[in-house]
Amino acid sequence: MPDIFFEDFAAGQEYELGSRTLDRAAIIEFATEHDPQLIHVDEDAASQSIYGGLIASGWQTCTLYMRLLCDNLLLRVDGMGSPGVDELRWLAPVRPGDTLSAKLRIEDVRASKSKPDRGIVMTVGEVRNQDGELVLTLKSALMVRRR
Amino acid sequence: MPDIFFEDFAAGQEYELGSRTLDRAAIIEFATEHDPQLIHVDEDAASQSIYGGLIASGWQTCTLYMRLLCDNLLLRVDGMGSPGVDELRWLAPVRPGDTLSAKLRIEDVRASKSKPDRGIVMTVGEVRNQDGELVLTLKSALMVRRR
Repeated sequence: MPDIFFEDFAAGQEYELGSRTLDRAAIIEFATEHDPQLIHVDEDAASQSIYGGLIASGWQTCTLYMRLLCDNLLLRVDGMGSPGVDELRWLAPVRPGDTLSAKLRIEDVRASKSKPDRGIVMTVGEVRNQDGELVLTLKSALMVRRR
Repeated sequence: MPDIFFEDFAAGQEYELGSRTLDRAAIIEFATEHDPQLIHVDEDAASQSIYGGLIASGWQTCTLYMRLLCDNLLLRVDGMGSPGVDELRWLAPVRPGDTLSAKLRIEDVRASKSKPDRGIVMTVGEVRNQDGELVLTLKSALMVRRR
């Protein structure tokens, strides 16, 4: 049962969301299904590209972030979905063997004026690789039920 | 071999990207791996939610769009990746059995000033369900090689 509600969030809070390593097989498997561009599925072609080798689909970095967010925070939140994402930036390539760590910061909280059962929690997510380099940032609004 | 280059794009062009049907098993499988919120993986819990039943992860709609974009345009483009996405909006729930159709519109094209081998193609993507209802819109920049 969810035990985190709108009232539990406040601007400035930060949540460490853990990490996961992406190996070559996982990169190719995801991209073969969802984003079969050569730079994501073909080592030889990728080595001839501006990236110099295989890189993960940017959508895989997003889903990795989403899974870490679920496992380490969101499954405990009484959430009501999200209207979308802004300023999603793929800032550096993700390569086989990279270990990615995610973090969430609460930017703002707003009680809904029209719907008294919920509030909007504005979040900024970021994912860094093992060298501390940012590979993904995104802003997202979460609708969260009030106590 | 790619046969579509920066010079082939112009503002106002539209590309139909085809369609795909998402069944219940595909929705649960994707969400179990990437976004295991109850509304995406548990029919009973979902039926008690504001959505009244199981709905697809928004990230699944994004990857469905990406795959249709690859299969129907992007794999022919001499692309060099994307810096990110703006104004990603999940506008309506996607439910089991929905058939989703995608479209891409070219909003603007800009030759890179600093890198003469490429240009930026600004795109707007949209996904509609079988009733013509918009379920996803997003803006994305593609880097594309010049001839």
